[in-house]
Amino acid sequence: MKRIFKTGVALALSLSLLSSQLIWAGVNTAEAAGKKVKNVIMMIPDGMSVDGTTLARWYNGGQPLAMDEMACGLVRTYSSDAAIADSAPAGSAFATGYKSHTGYVATLPEVANMPGLRPITEEDKNRPVATILEAAKLAGKATGVISTSETMHATPADFTAHSTSRKAYDDLSEQQVYNNVDVVLGAGWKFMDGNNRKDKTDLISVIKNKGYDYVTTPAALQASKSNKIWGLFAPEALAYEMDRDPAKEPSLAEMTGKAINVLSQDKDGFFLMVEGSKVDWAAHANDPVGVISDILAFDKAVKVALDFAKKDKNTVVIAVTDHGNGGLTIGDAGTTKTYDEEPLATFINPLKKAKLTGEGIESKLNADRSNIKEVMATYFGITDLTEAEIAAIKAAKPGSMNYAVGPIISKRAHIGWTTGGHTGEDVVLYVYAPNGVDRLTGVVENTDIAKYMEEVLGLSLTDATKKLFVDANAAFKAKGASVELKDSGNNNMVLVVKKGATTLELPINTNIARMGDKKVELSGVIVYNGGRTFVPQDAVSLIN
Amino acid sequence: MKRIFKTGVALALSLSLLSSQLIWAGVNTAEAAGKKVKNVIMMIPDGMSVDGTTLARWYNGGQPLAMDEMACGLVRTYSSDAAIADSAPAGSAFATGYKSHTGYVATLPEVANMPGLRPITEEDKNRPVATILEAAKLAGKATGVISTSETMHATPADFTAHSTSRKAYDDLSEQQVYNNVDVVLGAGWKFMDGNNRKDKTDLISVIKNKGYDYVTTPAALQASKSNKIWGLFAPEALAYEMDRDPAKEPSLAEMTGKAINVLSQDKDGFFLMVEGSKVDWAAHANDPVGVISDILAFDKAVKVALDFAKKDKNTVVIAVTDHGNGGLTIGDAGTTKTYDEEPLATFINPLKKAKLTGEGIESKLNADRSNIKEVMATYFGITDLTEAEIAAIKAAKPGSMNYAVGPIISKRAHIGWTTGGHTGEDVVLYVYAPNGVDRLTGVVENTDIAKYMEEVLGLSLTDATKKLFVDANAAFKAKGASVELKDSGNNNMVLVVKKGATTLELPINTNIARMGDKKVELSGVIVYNGGRTFVPQDAVSLIN
Repeated sequence: MKRIFKTGVALALSLSLLSSQLIWAGVNTAEAAGKKVKNVIMMIPDGMSVDGTTLARWYNGGQPLAMDEMACGLVRTYSSDAAIADSAPAGSAFATGYKSHTGYVATLPEVANMPGLRPITEEDKNRPVATILEAAKLAGKATGVISTSETMHATPADFTAHSTSRKAYDDLSEQQVYNNVDVVLGAGWKFMDGNNRKDKTDLISVIKNKGYDYVTTPAALQASKSNKIWGLFAPEALAYEMDRDPAKEPSLAEMTGKAINVLSQDKDGFFLMVEGSKVDWAAHANDPVGVISDILAFDKAVKVALDFAKKDKNTVVIAVTDHGNGGLTIGDAGTTKTYDEEPLATFINPLKKAKLTGEGIESKLNADRSNIKEVMATYFGITDLTEAEIAAIKAAKPGSMNYAVGPIISKRAHIGWTTGGHTGEDVVLYVYAPNGVDRLTGVVENTDIAKYMEEVLGLSLTDATKKLFVDANAAFKAKGASVELKDSGNNNMVLVVKKGATTLELPINTNIARMGDKKVELSGVIVYNGGRTFVPQDAVSLIN
Repeated sequence: MKRIFKTGVALALSLSLLSSQLIWAGVNTAEAAGKKVKNVIMMIPDGMSVDGTTLARWYNGGQPLAMDEMACGLVRTYSSDAAIADSAPAGSAFATGYKSHTGYVATLPEVANMPGLRPITEEDKNRPVATILEAAKLAGKATGVISTSETMHATPADFTAHSTSRKAYDDLSEQQVYNNVDVVLGAGWKFMDGNNRKDKTDLISVIKNKGYDYVTTPAALQASKSNKIWGLFAPEALAYEMDRDPAKEPSLAEMTGKAINVLSQDKDGFFLMVEGSKVDWAAHANDPVGVISDILAFDKAVKVALDFAKKDKNTVVIAVTDHGNGGLTIGDAGTTKTYDEEPLATFINPLKKAKLTGEGIESKLNADRSNIKEVMATYFGITDLTEAEIAAIKAAKPGSMNYAVGPIISKRAHIGWTTGGHTGEDVVLYVYAPNGVDRLTGVVENTDIAKYMEEVLGLSLTDATKKLFVDANAAFKAKGASVELKDSGNNNMVLVVKKGATTLELPINTNIARMGDKKVELSGVIVYNGGRTFVPQDAVSLIN
């Protein structure tokens, strides 16, 4: 089955180490060697459906969104063994070019059994694979990741860390700290604090010691003159744009602008990933206000990236969600007979009354939730709450208020939902490429996004994987060394390699090699996948 | 607000007669004068959502659909005064370049109040406007329309007739018969039969008298050597592809292939519209089997068109639905917690068991519906019907069985739905254009489709409207003639124009002008919009 990208770049696979995963997508007509660019900005509005985008555009007045002009095709989102992806493998596909299993972060799966996928070899199972950010770094480019979630959440982790579990925040965040990303902006300082970590390591101190300007306010972010910035603006995730306090947290557009300013100083170019994380969270909660809030915030960030790219003429901007979520539609069971006679106001006016998202109103409710009617009237413009609705708001668990009020406002706005989970449809591909640079088009695989970035940046993910993730046991033993994985206390695992009088210590999740007093910074992080340890080739080279 | 189609054609509006309707879309950067083509094949899978397409692809094994390589953007579907369009104005937008009101067929609305639309002038209200098919015909091109619905149903009517009501089957079908379309294939002979028409006119006889080869079987269609074919293969709509008897009804792909064979003989080129009408009907019924059946049938027709276009190198193929419908998702409330662990089989296996669509099983049920369990087991593979489900099937009205069984199979396949009506999201744009011919991309208006076709075919819809739809009263009175609309019996209205000794008779819905014994064929049909009559310029020229 031959697939042609008419105006798209050739996606000739060159995976000598790893088996080619896709049967159908692996045979695109090769017209490679297109014009390259220095920079790629990859933007991910997590869980954004095309219906949500349309709704956000109407909410915003109807004029085109910044991303509209970039729409150029569709992306298939399934994972290695499920029709509907979770964010970890979906983002990993963008980052690495491989489909994987639920929860897997930039790591190959154990099973690849979706139609058109080749089975995974024994050797490749659970193997970390290089991300486009890591490949860009090896090529001397500056790199950055931005999210409105915790920075160690699935999507930003997909580009900067490796694990078989997205829940392994300790591992993921430690790898991120040691992966020499130049700009990291988002939230989640709570998970960096040694007191909250099994390994007791205070990652904030590590960041500072590594020379980052660590900032926690928008003012400090803007004031920073450093080319290495780590900004965390909340203990867990950032607020929805609609609920945000601009003195305490920057907008996604602000973070994007600052990151571009910093990264674009690098003469070798840059790779930046920007995630609008909470579109997804609002969709899970079936809260259309949250969806609109953060799609529009995302679109403003796209505008910042697009404005830069158009001026720069050497930058590709890609925007694509990782999967659908919620099954939102403009129109619901209540409009089955009347849909074509409903004015726009039917759908938009009830949403326009909301001053906060479903999450945002939680802080307005008092402890015993006795002011539900007042809060819903003031902040949602809803004055006709039913007893059942009041009960649902009263019963909502802390942090889940959007799950209670999302459906309440949806009903009034005739916004339909099918599920509280992700959905399996193809999602919209948005690409801006400078004149003369091929633009991906047609229906492509999520893994093709990585291959497109590889192609336009002139990078090789396969080469990067070979350089960064060598099976330590096999490599060191081939050199006559012994290898042992030890716990140096508090779950801080160290790979200890011995040959003759030489002892090489390789702390897992870091990019550090120690030989006696000598400390070497490696080109990537040391990853333990629960069975095997993978180290950069330069670690192997330390043993003669 | 400036919108740029990077690889897209310039859409410079040139509407001197009619006011430019769109504020935002009317100012695209003009790089016009691109390479032209001889032929356009416009394909409309009515009511197809991106989720339905993804589901159909999985049902079919997962390999790319024929249309996949053509995906290149999104289309906004709203009508002149509603966020969610019905097929009449949605198809009219494709056909004419104007947004209109619910039920309006290739006729301007009374109200245009959606954001970004200019108000409609008094003069333009309810005014018929030329379709791309009519403009192609004026340029000497061959034309055709194909549908699986009745040929006088909204979408095929949108390209071939004009009315303020899609329900005016008598008017629409009569105009179609007199509009000199070369190939008309579909269904609905019941509505052509004089016995079923208020005007008592037997349109089948008219068709034959006009020199069409009138065919009613696939064999006769294939055998026809005529360059004018009118094929009606069922009294009302054709069956869903999955339910179709191939001896009695041709597939959409068969009809498309035959039409292309016939129309491509014209040295001036051709315009062909192909509608997969019943994707929409299945979506209204929330029947995923019907949706899949007719999306795959549509895709086979796309393959026929695409194969021709690639060989011909002088043909643009456009595929785009007119609006979403049903809010189908892969995943439903039952997969909220498990979505990312569900194998593909969860969604596909229950659907694979179905041997017929929800409509198709109706004929398998006996008169008293006492064999529901057996029929559902045999044809749907469902053996665990609840009492409520059995009751729903028993209660289903004739012709509505898909509304009863669609939800039953959806539940088992975890296919979600939000509504029984249309939905308001942007839909996917699919375009194939030969090398060197610009391809529309980005988020465009449904009206931009008409403008793109105009551009690549080198036609002018405005000029066509000027030629075809002159306000009869004003034009004839300016020549000193009197004008009167008369009923010549059975609702057969005739515009009678008198000047001196000359009497010109212009029967509404025909392209005939009579002056005494002289009968003249006009370049288009005479349209009465309930207030005013519009005639081709050549009718006006008959009065000195």
